[in-house]
Amino acid sequence: MDIATIIGVVGGLALIGVAIGPAQLVYFVSVPSFLLVVGGAAAALFVNYPLSDVIAMINVMKKTLLYKVQSPKEVIPQLVEYASTARKDGILALQSVSKQGDDPFLNKGLQLAIDGAEPQTILKILETEVEYIRERHRIGAEMAQTFGTYLPAFGMIGTLVGLVLMLQNLDDPSSIGPSMAIALITTFYGALLANLVFLPMAGKLKKRSADETLVKELLTEGIVSIASGDNPRIIEQKLHVFLLPKLRESQFD
Amino acid sequence: MDIATIIGVVGGLALIGVAIGPAQLVYFVSVPSFLLVVGGAAAALFVNYPLSDVIAMINVMKKTLLYKVQSPKEVIPQLVEYASTARKDGILALQSVSKQGDDPFLNKGLQLAIDGAEPQTILKILETEVEYIRERHRIGAEMAQTFGTYLPAFGMIGTLVGLVLMLQNLDDPSSIGPSMAIALITTFYGALLANLVFLPMAGKLKKRSADETLVKELLTEGIVSIASGDNPRIIEQKLHVFLLPKLRESQFD
Amino acid sequence: MDIATIIGVVGGLALIGVAIGPAQLVYFVSVPSFLLVVGGAAAALFVNYPLSDVIAMINVMKKTLLYKVQSPKEVIPQLVEYASTARKDGILALQSVSKQGDDPFLNKGLQLAIDGAEPQTILKILETEVEYIRERHRIGAEMAQTFGTYLPAFGMIGTLVGLVLMLQNLDDPSSIGPSMAIALITTFYGALLANLVFLPMAGKLKKRSADETLVKELLTEGIVSIASGDNPRIIEQKLHVFLLPKLRESQFD
Amino acid sequence: MDIATIIGVVGGLALIGVAIGPAQLVYFVSVPSFLLVVGGAAAALFVNYPLSDVIAMINVMKKTLLYKVQSPKEVIPQLVEYASTARKDGILALQSVSKQGDDPFLNKGLQLAIDGAEPQTILKILETEVEYIRERHRIGAEMAQTFGTYLPAFGMIGTLVGLVLMLQNLDDPSSIGPSMAIALITTFYGALLANLVFLPMAGKLKKRSADETLVKELLTEGIVSIASGDNPRIIEQKLHVFLLPKLRESQFD
Amino acid sequence: MDIATIIGVVGGLALIGVAIGPAQLVYFVSVPSFLLVVGGAAAALFVNYPLSDVIAMINVMKKTLLYKVQSPKEVIPQLVEYASTARKDGILALQSVSKQGDDPFLNKGLQLAIDGAEPQTILKILETEVEYIRERHRIGAEMAQTFGTYLPAFGMIGTLVGLVLMLQNLDDPSSIGPSMAIALITTFYGALLANLVFLPMAGKLKKRSADETLVKELLTEGIVSIASGDNPRIIEQKLHVFLLPKLRESQFD
Repeated sequence: MDIATIIGVVGGLALIGVAIGPAQLVYFVSVPSFLLVVGGAAAALFVNYPLSDVIAMINVMKKTLLYKVQSPKEVIPQLVEYASTARKDGILALQSVSKQGDDPFLNKGLQLAIDGAEPQTILKILETEVEYIRERHRIGAEMAQTFGTYLPAFGMIGTLVGLVLMLQNLDDPSSIGPSMAIALITTFYGALLANLVFLPMAGKLKKRSADETLVKELLTEGIVSIASGDNPRIIEQKLHVFLLPKLRESQFD
Repeated sequence: MDIATIIGVVGGLALIGVAIGPAQLVYFVSVPSFLLVVGGAAAALFVNYPLSDVIAMINVMKKTLLYKVQSPKEVIPQLVEYASTARKDGILALQSVSKQGDDPFLNKGLQLAIDGAEPQTILKILETEVEYIRERHRIGAEMAQTFGTYLPAFGMIGTLVGLVLMLQNLDDPSSIGPSMAIALITTFYGALLANLVFLPMAGKLKKRSADETLVKELLTEGIVSIASGDNPRIIEQKLHVFLLPKLRESQFD
Repeated sequence: MDIATIIGVVGGLALIGVAIGPAQLVYFVSVPSFLLVVGGAAAALFVNYPLSDVIAMINVMKKTLLYKVQSPKEVIPQLVEYASTARKDGILALQSVSKQGDDPFLNKGLQLAIDGAEPQTILKILETEVEYIRERHRIGAEMAQTFGTYLPAFGMIGTLVGLVLMLQNLDDPSSIGPSMAIALITTFYGALLANLVFLPMAGKLKKRSADETLVKELLTEGIVSIASGDNPRIIEQKLHVFLLPKLRESQFD
Repeated sequence: MDIATIIGVVGGLALIGVAIGPAQLVYFVSVPSFLLVVGGAAAALFVNYPLSDVIAMINVMKKTLLYKVQSPKEVIPQLVEYASTARKDGILALQSVSKQGDDPFLNKGLQLAIDGAEPQTILKILETEVEYIRERHRIGAEMAQTFGTYLPAFGMIGTLVGLVLMLQNLDDPSSIGPSMAIALITTFYGALLANLVFLPMAGKLKKRSADETLVKELLTEGIVSIASGDNPRIIEQKLHVFLLPKLRESQFD
Repeated sequence: MDIATIIGVVGGLALIGVAIGPAQLVYFVSVPSFLLVVGGAAAALFVNYPLSDVIAMINVMKKTLLYKVQSPKEVIPQLVEYASTARKDGILALQSVSKQGDDPFLNKGLQLAIDGAEPQTILKILETEVEYIRERHRIGAEMAQTFGTYLPAFGMIGTLVGLVLMLQNLDDPSSIGPSMAIALITTFYGALLANLVFLPMAGKLKKRSADETLVKELLTEGIVSIASGDNPRIIEQKLHVFLLPKLRESQFD
């Protein structure tokens, strides 16, 4: 569960709520304004992406909140152990491991190695796989970013609508202030949703994708080294570059 | 038929229409303002692109609405079948297939393989073809994007025109509000057309191009593998990286 | 003669003139404002580019209006014919052609082939030539773009000047409106010149450069293939990727 | 200690303080406004980055203030000396050096050379290490940049809140001025913190990273040359390209 | 001496001075406003760059005004002459030339060739040198650009300060106009300094760097060809691609 996202969104809204003050919160609640901004930006998103992709976005955003990425620190000792096993008992000894594991990427790679594929072939297949994973992530992050770009645009469009209506009805001077306040609320909604929710969420999706593909690259490097029959000690040294120096703990020292 | 585009544009306009309210919609209808914004942006587009390209854009935009892209999921079994046929009966057995097919790209690639061209040569010819398809798509999307960039600029130019005229005729205070409302309408038109229609449409053209060239890359990979006489099972594994893991269904399991 | 550019600029100005209305056009004519915006942006351009380059820009802009690019469709049959001649009568038979032609790039390439240079050498020389042509075009387009960026900036500077002067002289309330109208005219000039003339012209220069270098790349591919003694039929197939599929007409069918 | 950062922040604030004048500074102090801007941008940062990364940022920013990078000018003679020792007494003679040194990157590289690793292997390991160092730096700078982008956004959001509240309470005309002044303070905070602190700090983090990785690249070049048994004089010449010509002092002249 | 820079800055300022009119120039002179904008942007620059780099910037800017770049047209015949000498009398005959020349880059390259270094080695050393020259130039241009980005930001900060002070002191209506005029002057300073001086100067530094590194690349190509013992006629043809076709004058025709 991604606590930071929830802390950020809830905390940010609470902060602004406190700054406004409970007695005046009512001035900032307008269902039609909210519908105009969110609905307009959603309409633009429908024009911008195929229907199936828009639906897929909901899954992507759930993933942001619930996602748990493997840590390179946990993966390295496991790979080094596999390498030791393969060195000692032959690569076929990894057969049982590749069935048990719960990471389909690792299993696929090990299975290729067990089946006797050339290291170069394994490298190419796994690299292509990582590339397409990265591409699917990129589209998810891009969609959140795009939504975060249309939101302030429709906020401004809503304010223009409000201003035009107000300017056409200037008869009652006492209504000018509140009319303009209402006109500004769409801009407020657009700016808040974009800057507190969707643009930062796009940022987190990018970061998560980078973390995940880093682990996948590490796995690729490790599997190819195992398939090449490298020394486990050298494999560990190769994989340690993926870690901060202070996190590197050798199993051989 | 691309339903999402129509839902988006019609839904977005309806939403804004409802927010304005039917009684006041008349304040937002101004043919001269519309002509200024759309005509001005169109004039800029004429300066920006050769005449023939501007005309071609209309076809590009029709394509956005009517386009139907092949799914990688449908194409893979077909390629695997061709590979099996080629393995069993020789590559010449694909002759009949390459005449029937309705995808000229696939036909061209198969024909090259049947004619005995080297896999490297086929790869180079098909890759160049994909590159130029991508380039033609890119120009279409860029043109929609450019139009979507000029629209708000001419919206602002229209508002400046309206403001200058209003400021030069301040004698009648009661006309200031409506004059300014009219001045703002061009900005409203520019922002709405850009953010609801042309910028999202540029986005969809990019997405469509990516989908189409992905299938073309998959076809290239498959045809080159067939020409190289690869094992159908290995070809399937190579092509499956183009699919989401959960969509991968092997014909050999 | 590039009709689209003229249609665009003249049509765009006419449209805005009609929107303003002939009786009020006088409000938008201000020689000092025009000099401030154009002169200021020109001064910035002088700081931004060496004197010789600024002068060269005038030629570049003329080229935009008068330029006529060769079509790939015309060039391909010509190259295929040369290839046939070279195959039949030897490469020296192209000697007469390379003297007659009016395209110095093609002549240079053919001359290199006739002189017996290695295909790799010809490729490298012609590619470097194309690269520097692209670079010279890029600078021309960049200069138009830069000018189109400074214009609205000096439009805003002019408006700031007008606002400060107006705010320092508020004694006569009736002059406030017209003063502010005049202040806004520089912003209007800057936005109009940038968005109707210079930014689109930069776009057209880029498009033209792409078209021209595409033909040069096609010529390079063709000349290198001729020098390599390739089969004319294969050369045609290689060059056809530069064309839209529907424009491809083989001379051999 | 990075004096320029402190001079910049303190000097910039002092300058603005003097411009405001001590008697009026009180108008610019508003704890709720400050909390809204900084808290809102911090909330967005929490949504944008994993919790652990946000905490790591504090270390990154301390590093900006306290960091001391090695100068290429100091490192080159040291490497040349090692090269001479390795040439004269064999590469094992560097054993003692590689234990003493306080730069773990240099020690690691020398140890690899002493252990007899191939120059190509050393190059690959050290290059990967430099790449990941650069990546970790990049994320730190990106985070400061992101914070500097959210700050003005929440400044604007705060001003919108203030404007809406003011427009809803126009009864007392004498309070309009001060209310609007207070509304503008959040924009002021956002602009000042972004442009005086966080955006420039992101710039410095990038510069520092470039300086540090340059030294690491120089060390890599030097270690690989030592492992290859190159002539010390040639090593010096290779490494001098990392220095400004006027700083190059040969030990051999 | 770079006349265009001086013409640009002086001419631009004169133009704006004339537009304001001598009697009203006094409204635009405000030492505190100037200090706020320039001092604030300078403070941000100190945070953004190490102290030593900020000082180095002054030299970079002097260079912009005083710099004189060699023309490719002058350099080519010289290189062709050296090539002829090397062909006729052996490469050692260039010894005297490499001592006399006043271009340290050319001398270094020739010396390497005379010392018998491999063409590939010379190419690598000179290319690295050019790369670092380009990098040092890039930082200079980036710094001018960064300063030109902070200037309008601090112009806006100054205007916010002025607006807040004005809104807190609305008692005297007659002072509102002049107060606001003064508030706008910082925006005017920021926009003018950025768009007339620092952003264009960054552009010129980039252009100059491109011109200088082009000549250095030409020299590299020439020196490597001389070291390879190429035919002077072929060297000339290789180097001519760096020139506009109409400037190419062969010494052999």
